[in-house]
Amino acid sequence: MRPAMSLARYLPSLPVLQWGRHYDRSTLVSDLVAALIVTVMLIPQSLAYALLAGLPPEVGLYASVAPLLLYAIFGTSRVLAVGPVAVVSLMTAAAIGEHAAVGSQAYWAVAITLAFMSGGMLVLMGVLRLGFLANFLSHPVISGFISASGLLIAASQIKTIMGVKAEGHNFVDLIQALVRQLPQTHFLTLSVGVLATVFLFWVRKGLKPLLVRFGLQARAADVLAKAGPVAAIAVTALLTWFFDWQAQGLKIVGAVPQGLPPLTLPLWDLALWKALAVPALLISVVGFVESVSVGQTLAAKRRQRIEPDQELVALGASNLSAALTGGFPVTGGFARSVVNFDAGAQTPAAGVFTAVGITLASLLLTPALYFLPQATLAATIVVAVLSLVDLGILKRTWAYSKADFVAALATLLVTLTMGVETGLVVGVGVSLALYLFRTSRPHIAEVGLIPGTEHFRNVLRHSVLVSPRLVSLRVDESLYFANSRALEDRVNEAVASHPELAHVVLQCSAINDIDASALESLEAIEKRLRDSGIALHLSEVKGPVMDRLKTTHFLRGLSGRVFLTQFQAIHELTPEIERASAV
Amino acid sequence: MRPAMSLARYLPSLPVLQWGRHYDRSTLVSDLVAALIVTVMLIPQSLAYALLAGLPPEVGLYASVAPLLLYAIFGTSRVLAVGPVAVVSLMTAAAIGEHAAVGSQAYWAVAITLAFMSGGMLVLMGVLRLGFLANFLSHPVISGFISASGLLIAASQIKTIMGVKAEGHNFVDLIQALVRQLPQTHFLTLSVGVLATVFLFWVRKGLKPLLVRFGLQARAADVLAKAGPVAAIAVTALLTWFFDWQAQGLKIVGAVPQGLPPLTLPLWDLALWKALAVPALLISVVGFVESVSVGQTLAAKRRQRIEPDQELVALGASNLSAALTGGFPVTGGFARSVVNFDAGAQTPAAGVFTAVGITLASLLLTPALYFLPQATLAATIVVAVLSLVDLGILKRTWAYSKADFVAALATLLVTLTMGVETGLVVGVGVSLALYLFRTSRPHIAEVGLIPGTEHFRNVLRHSVLVSPRLVSLRVDESLYFANSRALEDRVNEAVASHPELAHVVLQCSAINDIDASALESLEAIEKRLRDSGIALHLSEVKGPVMDRLKTTHFLRGLSGRVFLTQFQAIHELTPEIERASAV
Repeated sequence: MRPAMSLARYLPSLPVLQWGRHYDRSTLVSDLVAALIVTVMLIPQSLAYALLAGLPPEVGLYASVAPLLLYAIFGTSRVLAVGPVAVVSLMTAAAIGEHAAVGSQAYWAVAITLAFMSGGMLVLMGVLRLGFLANFLSHPVISGFISASGLLIAASQIKTIMGVKAEGHNFVDLIQALVRQLPQTHFLTLSVGVLATVFLFWVRKGLKPLLVRFGLQARAADVLAKAGPVAAIAVTALLTWFFDWQAQGLKIVGAVPQGLPPLTLPLWDLALWKALAVPALLISVVGFVESVSVGQTLAAKRRQRIEPDQELVALGASNLSAALTGGFPVTGGFARSVVNFDAGAQTPAAGVFTAVGITLASLLLTPALYFLPQATLAATIVVAVLSLVDLGILKRTWAYSKADFVAALATLLVTLTMGVETGLVVGVGVSLALYLFRTSRPHIAEVGLIPGTEHFRNVLRHSVLVSPRLVSLRVDESLYFANSRALEDRVNEAVASHPELAHVVLQCSAINDIDASALESLEAIEKRLRDSGIALHLSEVKGPVMDRLKTTHFLRGLSGRVFLTQFQAIHELTPEIERASAV
Repeated sequence: MRPAMSLARYLPSLPVLQWGRHYDRSTLVSDLVAALIVTVMLIPQSLAYALLAGLPPEVGLYASVAPLLLYAIFGTSRVLAVGPVAVVSLMTAAAIGEHAAVGSQAYWAVAITLAFMSGGMLVLMGVLRLGFLANFLSHPVISGFISASGLLIAASQIKTIMGVKAEGHNFVDLIQALVRQLPQTHFLTLSVGVLATVFLFWVRKGLKPLLVRFGLQARAADVLAKAGPVAAIAVTALLTWFFDWQAQGLKIVGAVPQGLPPLTLPLWDLALWKALAVPALLISVVGFVESVSVGQTLAAKRRQRIEPDQELVALGASNLSAALTGGFPVTGGFARSVVNFDAGAQTPAAGVFTAVGITLASLLLTPALYFLPQATLAATIVVAVLSLVDLGILKRTWAYSKADFVAALATLLVTLTMGVETGLVVGVGVSLALYLFRTSRPHIAEVGLIPGTEHFRNVLRHSVLVSPRLVSLRVDESLYFANSRALEDRVNEAVASHPELAHVVLQCSAINDIDASALESLEAIEKRLRDSGIALHLSEVKGPVMDRLKTTHFLRGLSGRVFLTQFQAIHELTPEIERASAV
């Protein structure tokens, strides 16, 4: 609980000191090549995600420089590329929308503040080792959330592709607004947008096989295909310039300021901080989960590991640096990290070189972006986010687990209809409630002896030997407050239905824990059984559970005994069963 | 989901139709005797709890008539006595306090509304079979809550015993206010209050042994000792009348209206209903939990059962009837039910006779209550509620389970400092969070073979045989979203620390469930291991878990195998271990 001390603990093991020590020429070349490829890919993506977040395009470039440098120092993944990503940009837009008008200076200032708060929270969570909190986002909830976000983002971009204005607070509103605007569609804009979209889809699916057929290596073809958006951007910008399409109403990016990322500070406004606290936390958690899962997947491919709590610190530092250099919330992105990995990046130095590349681009390249149609950027977003939409999760969870299906569906629907923050919170709430519900109704089987063996099975499913004087119950769940009454009920039922009952044996082989409530329930069960002249026995109690029970009065007061095995219990309590089994 | 149908289902099996059919003369005599004793005990208790709830004393009598009749029809416990109880009265006072001034007509109307809402909620929960929700109140939370409520109630009564005015929003405020009022203490009131308190404590502890020594049977002595409050009331009222103490400033109960319980209706005020929704729900749940635990304990003594969902309907009907007859929220009380049981009540008809007794009392007896000192009633409350305070729960849970200790302590402290509603909600939240936290960090042991056996044990605790080519991990928890990443981390760690690793075996004997997130984690683990050239195997998978895994692609794509036993896995994968064991 001394953060300063904890922070100091990180310094000697800073990831940069580990990989930096063994840096050599061949690593340098690999990293430089990867950086070049990633830089080319990042430029349009950064612009597009800044627009998605409601910010000027150059802010996307700013957010792609300092975070890469900081991640290179603190991050444990060798290949993760940090910067603006689609879902976090959408969440940023949702969070800021209530506090400032899109396009205003205040809007940008709030975005900077959000990045700062999110960065601070991430660092704090890392220092306090709270990375495990992200585990409470279940896969179905994440999947439902990401899919819904993808649909929301795609819907929000269609207006740009159609060249109309349309606003909506949720997916349905948005689609309705788009339908109403259909007659106002700007035909030239729509043509550029649709052609760019079709081209980009084709690049994804069709370009790589074509390149391979023309003799390129599979990996090189893959990397080249990822640069498709650059081609779309170059071609549509050139055509716009040549045919003067902006005079015909085609919206273009326009003047993007040239220069280094500016030095900025967050707004010190307590009321604003209070209002942004929950969104900042949700952005932090979602960004962390996305980043860690990408990082883990890529690290495992090279038998490397990432350290989740250190990742929190690294992402926190990245976001703080974004806030100080005019950026907005960032995290480790899937697409760019995979490209970085495939292009052969060996160390986070590749990220440093990428940062240099982006800096050069924002110094020199922005005039070339003047004629870039906004519809082309919208097309790159639509194509990128539709790959996030995975409605198959509903089918898979329906087949495997109805509870997970409900959690995924609830997250998806609430996110679409009530927004990203509500969707995420409801999703987590529903998944936790369903888990608690499931564990509160444990499977409790009455078991009997399989003749001729020492094995016990459910009396409902197998032909087994039982005695009217003894009931054996196997509880398939740890006992805790929410399910201990279910055990009481089950024992009461057994007593009521067995008039000759003299022994109840609880087979505890699947009980990993017994909390204080469950202990009191066991005591209550024991007392009620004793009042009815029935003895309570336990069998197959696990070591750690037994250790804790020994600290209580329960075992000493027990009317029955504790048997090492269920068979031993039957052997001693109802020898007639064992004789019947042996026959 | 068709409530009307569900409701109809209850009618043919109405408890009253079961016990009513076999009602005979001897049962009648038992019930009449029990009813007489309970009536005598209930009169002072009902008055006192009405005052505690901030209501006129006669409301306590009204709330003790109709609920008993309705419970007799719908309830499944043979001996539960329904009426005002201490904790629910305190919660009632806390809930109403914000909406009306104590003593006003509006205050009573809100109390009636609260009983009506609580009754409606209970019936609804019963029909929807939501009785299991009460299980989420853990024993330590209930214990902490009841103890804190007892302390709060006792503190609130001290001002009446001191004859001063003192208000406080929490325990500390209240105690401070009392200390400030010390100089204003009314000596006569204090004398009456303290003497009554001492007498009642003595009746509890000392009267029964005395009566037994004078030749009374133990049970009769017990029942007679329970009537102690009646003696205290009779004596102090007589003394007050005789010495005209009220003229010297002793506060008396004064004129209590004579008559039958009035017919009343709740307030139909949507804003009020919205404000009372949460308090009404909490009162319903606490009342239900108290009532069911009393009912279960007493039913078990006679090998009877109670049906929690039917109890919800019965308590709901009781509260609705309280609302229609000028009462306030009621539930099954511990003290009166135990007296009813001990006095030999056989059926709920005893409750009907008690209701008749209370009706007669409210018709005829109220003038006799005129001179009753309020300090005497306060003394009966203090003595009754201090038996609820059980701070031993903190010591017991500290010894047994730190998580339960934290939950109990948090509930106790928050209830004392921030009130009953916040205390209860925080308690439930803390206990659920701690449970989730515990299950999110499962015990995962690396196991090895005990030489010469087929048993496997933790490598850290036992001297066992392992191979550098194989790691066996035993997970002591069901796998779900919150802990599946812990398994990923543990496997990653094993891979990083075993450079020669070729096999990972997960021993699944304690895994009762694998949810969709955990399945994805297993797939991710399998894929990462495969990318590193390591095979993943499972052993000792439970039947139901195996059934579900078979519906997925996971088993088909598995790089390793599924073994019936852990020993078989070692036998086939690392025969060198088995040879070493056999030597």
